[in-house]
Amino acid sequence: MNRVALVFLAALVPICAHATPPDKLRIQVERYRATHEKEIVGRLAELVSLRSVEADPAGLTATAERIGGWLAARGFTVTQLSAGPGTAPLVFGSFDTRGAKRTVVFYAHYDGQPVTLSQWSADPFAPVMRSGSLGSGEHEIDWRSAPTPFSPEWRLFGRATGDDKAAIVAFLAAFDALKAAGRKPSVNIRVAWEGEEEAGSPHLAAILTAHRALFPADLWLIGDGPVHQSRKPLVDFGARGMMGVEATIYGPLRALHDGHYGNWVPNPAAMAARLVAELRDDDGRILIPGFLDDVRPVTSAERQAIAALPPVEDALRTEFAIGRSEGTEGLPASLMRPALNIRGIRAGQVGVAATNSIPTEAIVAIDFRLVPDQTPERVRARLEEFLATRGWTVVGEEPDRATRLAHPRIVRLEWDTGYPALRSDMSTPAARAVIATASAAASQPVAVLPMMGGSVPIYLIKDILGATVIGLPIANHDDNQHAANENLRLQNLWDGVGVYAAMMGELRW
Amino acid sequence: MNRVALVFLAALVPICAHATPPDKLRIQVERYRATHEKEIVGRLAELVSLRSVEADPAGLTATAERIGGWLAARGFTVTQLSAGPGTAPLVFGSFDTRGAKRTVVFYAHYDGQPVTLSQWSADPFAPVMRSGSLGSGEHEIDWRSAPTPFSPEWRLFGRATGDDKAAIVAFLAAFDALKAAGRKPSVNIRVAWEGEEEAGSPHLAAILTAHRALFPADLWLIGDGPVHQSRKPLVDFGARGMMGVEATIYGPLRALHDGHYGNWVPNPAAMAARLVAELRDDDGRILIPGFLDDVRPVTSAERQAIAALPPVEDALRTEFAIGRSEGTEGLPASLMRPALNIRGIRAGQVGVAATNSIPTEAIVAIDFRLVPDQTPERVRARLEEFLATRGWTVVGEEPDRATRLAHPRIVRLEWDTGYPALRSDMSTPAARAVIATASAAASQPVAVLPMMGGSVPIYLIKDILGATVIGLPIANHDDNQHAANENLRLQNLWDGVGVYAAMMGELRW
Repeated sequence: MNRVALVFLAALVPICAHATPPDKLRIQVERYRATHEKEIVGRLAELVSLRSVEADPAGLTATAERIGGWLAARGFTVTQLSAGPGTAPLVFGSFDTRGAKRTVVFYAHYDGQPVTLSQWSADPFAPVMRSGSLGSGEHEIDWRSAPTPFSPEWRLFGRATGDDKAAIVAFLAAFDALKAAGRKPSVNIRVAWEGEEEAGSPHLAAILTAHRALFPADLWLIGDGPVHQSRKPLVDFGARGMMGVEATIYGPLRALHDGHYGNWVPNPAAMAARLVAELRDDDGRILIPGFLDDVRPVTSAERQAIAALPPVEDALRTEFAIGRSEGTEGLPASLMRPALNIRGIRAGQVGVAATNSIPTEAIVAIDFRLVPDQTPERVRARLEEFLATRGWTVVGEEPDRATRLAHPRIVRLEWDTGYPALRSDMSTPAARAVIATASAAASQPVAVLPMMGGSVPIYLIKDILGATVIGLPIANHDDNQHAANENLRLQNLWDGVGVYAAMMGELRW
Repeated sequence: MNRVALVFLAALVPICAHATPPDKLRIQVERYRATHEKEIVGRLAELVSLRSVEADPAGLTATAERIGGWLAARGFTVTQLSAGPGTAPLVFGSFDTRGAKRTVVFYAHYDGQPVTLSQWSADPFAPVMRSGSLGSGEHEIDWRSAPTPFSPEWRLFGRATGDDKAAIVAFLAAFDALKAAGRKPSVNIRVAWEGEEEAGSPHLAAILTAHRALFPADLWLIGDGPVHQSRKPLVDFGARGMMGVEATIYGPLRALHDGHYGNWVPNPAAMAARLVAELRDDDGRILIPGFLDDVRPVTSAERQAIAALPPVEDALRTEFAIGRSEGTEGLPASLMRPALNIRGIRAGQVGVAATNSIPTEAIVAIDFRLVPDQTPERVRARLEEFLATRGWTVVGEEPDRATRLAHPRIVRLEWDTGYPALRSDMSTPAARAVIATASAAASQPVAVLPMMGGSVPIYLIKDILGATVIGLPIANHDDNQHAANENLRLQNLWDGVGVYAAMMGELRW
């Protein structure tokens, strides 16, 4: 769907100026940012106010139009790549640099996770600035009339602030800073801003395949996920894959008095609990036989990278107020394993609404996090085989009365499409150049993570395009992404502007 | 709180007439009922429209006033026995019969279970008549303008229709029928209509103790619970006790992205599932060590009574569309064991609202059904001891940050007061008289159940007053009591009128 395709060649002219030494650029970008803080935050607030969540197709469309317009205004050729009506387009932008040897794609996603309004302290689409994280003694700030520079500890609250609209706004500000500094990019720039990432990127493969010719890229930089919990800037070399499944377990056709039937009519809430307990142990280890057969071993280089990360476990336990953690190997090593997360369980009622009855069904929302070389197909097969050995009849649709009567244990599984993980080689020239350039931009060695715990469907980029994929997240680790009261710490936005400017202006290999 | 205390002596006169043979009364009552169906259903509809649920204290007060008024209008001395402001009173009524040797208390409760409006097909407090149960091809009926006799298969839908307002309305109609027949009661009549039964009868002990002098009763007849699933009228000799507990299991202080933290931050939904799986097995057997130590063995007379009940298991499995049942001993025998029911589980979100995050807490609503000679205190102690051996720190209040950080597994338990079970001797003269009189009223031998699976706090009556307690339920077994779309089948109401009239007019021992 090539709805917008404009090139503002005139905009190129001021960027094609003379080169300056690397440390000079860092200072120039900081100066630009310091004098444009209100404008940058304003753009993020504007973007967050657009309701780009799966439940609001119009919000997704409006967001794609807005960010495409921002690219076009900066001289990018902009195209909306869509898989068809009712889907959220990938906003593709292209900006060539005369004489550049390499082409780099900057990936981010403009859609956010669903919101449960009751859990938010304010409207998730009416961004609010606060002086710190919630519960820290923070206060609300009228940033529009506040003097600059803003405190770097302020946070903007709203859905998708950190995941992943910050990366879009940081990219735009970095591009503006480069232009203001009269710097010519060191690479050909491509932008791929997706609108269906939080829905599992169901159409990304089709889009990349159909538009393969648009992406002759050497390198994709993925602006998703948080930086290191130590607040160090981070480069990562992959992400876990994921696959969601919702399991519905059936009890009696109607809720029954649990005095008159408890001990005789099967209780689906208890059945759901047993099912979950049989799937994972108390340390998060998955108990499905053969589930780990496909797991690629961690290399010694990856192990060394993990060992070199600053320890954060004690600080995180305190931050989260948890009296234990699962497993003993520490956080980054534990993320090298597949995970089985319980996102939600619902059966009957609790609290004042609870009645003494046997519920009709129980629902368990699960997501698997996959690691190389697991595939969604094999994960699905392994779970369904396991359930069968445990006496479950697996169905795909709501079972009718006859089906319910015919089988002692019925579970309906509704699977997401899912996608596999990707872990890139950390020793390639491109990888080394990214680490060095990011470290220079941060004036410190960045943290290097072999694989993010979170998921983005970057395997597609490798599989379909053959490109190298490296993660360049900017959001704070405590941004509440995927939960209520998501927020972005301003210093992280500023760091993001710096590192994106370096990747556009100084990356060479 | 003696707010109403009126005696209408004049109303006694027409009842003190000559005696008629037993079978004659049955026919007289049937004739009365047949010519008063609309009036009786109207009284039930009026009573159901009063919002007598725990969440609506004004509704409870209004209901107590209304039913007290109905008794007073029939010549009863009426007193509201209350434990104090903000509590729902027990409506006590007294009607003496000159020369009667025995005093019988008719117990029912006028409060209903909480409602979850979204689950109801119509307003639970705006009763609707339908031609049958939901999903049976039923249609709605404008019973107020329909001709009588009504179809006995019609059902009135609304909260507390079956549990337990039908018993109140049946009692009143039976009394009216007796009076219309010019029959003198065979016993002194007392009425005890409670308003806090569904809340666990927290003040019943205090009320009975404070007003012991009002209750010199030989026998209490409990009009709560359903009749046998075969639709046979039923006499039961006790009820299981109960005790509710809500368990809250704590995860991280805020919801966390389960990609970045899954496998390391403990997932409270998974912890809750494991806890439940450790408490009960797949057949409902409670796994808490020592939990069964206090259980009184079933006698051979009780075993024989259970064996004599018509088998209903196959029909119920079909009715409920369940492909198995817990245990192998059959429904009535399984109810002689204690039960641990999961009323609800709630953690995170499911469906379209689900996010890929680790929830902050999980809530499990549990009720225990107790059997003689278990006590709530011992049940509580056994569960808490067991949790401690499984590594749980049990707290009674919301734990603060320091507490959460200090303990690996924290569960907050909020206990209801609870009460023990009661199983009465089936061989006493009063017991034999009730069985014989109920069988005569039904023109068939009634089903005899040693103990109901459901709970009413009848142990108090035995403990405090020393009275014999026998159950005389009237509601249909498929009345959805404690669930949405509760309903009463009219034939059950008519049977109730008949059996109550017999108990007032012919019971002697």
